[in-house]
Amino acid sequence: VAGPKRVLVTGAGGFLGSRIAPLLEGAGFGVHAADGDLLDPETAARLVRDARPTHLLHLAWYTEHGRFWEGAENLPWVEASVRLWREFAASEGARRFVGVGSCAEYEWSQPVLSEATTPIRPSSLYGVCKDATRRILEAASQREGISFAWGRVFFIYGPDEASGRLVPSVADALAEGRPARTSDGEQVRDFLHVDDAARALAALTDSDVRGPVNIGSGQGVAVREIVETLGRLAGRPELIELGAVPRPEGDPPEIVADAARLRDEVGWAPQVELESGLASTLESARAPG
Amino acid sequence: VAGPKRVLVTGAGGFLGSRIAPLLEGAGFGVHAADGDLLDPETAARLVRDARPTHLLHLAWYTEHGRFWEGAENLPWVEASVRLWREFAASEGARRFVGVGSCAEYEWSQPVLSEATTPIRPSSLYGVCKDATRRILEAASQREGISFAWGRVFFIYGPDEASGRLVPSVADALAEGRPARTSDGEQVRDFLHVDDAARALAALTDSDVRGPVNIGSGQGVAVREIVETLGRLAGRPELIELGAVPRPEGDPPEIVADAARLRDEVGWAPQVELESGLASTLESARAPG
Repeated sequence: VAGPKRVLVTGAGGFLGSRIAPLLEGAGFGVHAADGDLLDPETAARLVRDARPTHLLHLAWYTEHGRFWEGAENLPWVEASVRLWREFAASEGARRFVGVGSCAEYEWSQPVLSEATTPIRPSSLYGVCKDATRRILEAASQREGISFAWGRVFFIYGPDEASGRLVPSVADALAEGRPARTSDGEQVRDFLHVDDAARALAALTDSDVRGPVNIGSGQGVAVREIVETLGRLAGRPELIELGAVPRPEGDPPEIVADAARLRDEVGWAPQVELESGLASTLESARAPG
Repeated sequence: VAGPKRVLVTGAGGFLGSRIAPLLEGAGFGVHAADGDLLDPETAARLVRDARPTHLLHLAWYTEHGRFWEGAENLPWVEASVRLWREFAASEGARRFVGVGSCAEYEWSQPVLSEATTPIRPSSLYGVCKDATRRILEAASQREGISFAWGRVFFIYGPDEASGRLVPSVADALAEGRPARTSDGEQVRDFLHVDDAARALAALTDSDVRGPVNIGSGQGVAVREIVETLGRLAGRPELIELGAVPRPEGDPPEIVADAARLRDEVGWAPQVELESGLASTLESARAPG
């Protein structure tokens, strides 16, 4: 009944996407990496026509560090995502659409965020746009008989992460012998190594689990522990300056995924221990750019 | 400080829009009726460039009777609406955006629907798409310093309404001497004459009231009363066949607007009595097509 599986992956060249494509090939998919500018209204139709996908994994979005939370650049990505879904849904053989959202869709008023019980109340424009896109595409998929899932990604780290984010900024400072000036680090976050996140999204794509699924470890770690571990692993603990910069106003004390759906329904389990994950990230920061 | 007011109106040729444009002219606006296909990605930029609007009243959407509730045709209208907002927000002089939504955005579990307290839980794809569009554009407007309002329209009736809907279908049957076969008519709805709705949306556009505003009378009327009044006014009460067709499963018993924001903040009051509104609608059904 099921025939060959062909997946079109947007953002296939990115931090997550570059690791997911090989996993999907390993799972028996014919993988088509989306090329071209998805903001161009013509691109989606061409991609779907050429790839004839049974599955679509839509990772691409506006991600410029520092700007993506509140930039109006989020809006054309809503349009591009809806257009991409339309072209996919209208094509023969379309079976499953997996989109990627964020923990930023939730209200951050409780420490553990659950797909089933935590209110949706994004405080950023990025979170609003991701959530609105999910609402539209989930409802439309139900009506068109397309299996739909939405991975809500928490805090991903690992080699080749965009500079400016927490782990690479500390790793870069340590690699260059500069002080790593951070906040007090008391905030607890759900950090997941990019290889584990890639395995989670590949498994989600190859499943029939529907609706929102948190992509997180389910374990909270204080940022202080991340930063201190990096200093220790680099052999330069004296360069770590916790508390040198203030935490943003309203920064929530704890953001941790309820990972039960991912583990129990998708059948995923993490493989990368925090310390070895941070060690490999430090390695990549040390390598000549 | 405020300079001349220029409003770009989409859907200006429609049931509501054709009545709103003259009202906005009367309120001192230079009115630009949007022409061209808003689903064409080039149209919005041209319209904004030509009209240089300070205000935008966005009425256009997919409205094909019977299909609009669940049709995938709602999705390109999300894209078109976001694109239109982007072009408007990026233009010099943009001050206020007024979009048009629906009572279908609310959860229909309580009789009176309030902007402040009724949960948002649309059951139709149309309602999902309208609500998601509002979420995106309201959040983006706040960040760009654009005054934003969203009129949630309830049940509008009046001359030139699309055939197939309740009042014109009864009026047409009566005009042609055919039986008007309806449901039992026990359901209570908030009916507003199109001229009153047009005045409400024109006043909302010319105000600085922000966020969602119900466009309804605040008065519930049983459909039975509407239908019987039409039969009496036409002098053919014997043609009314209440209960001849079943009500749709799950049809809510009562959908009435809390109209306090519209009255108290926008300063609007209805002018058309139900009986005279229905009489003028009958007149238009009798007129040669």
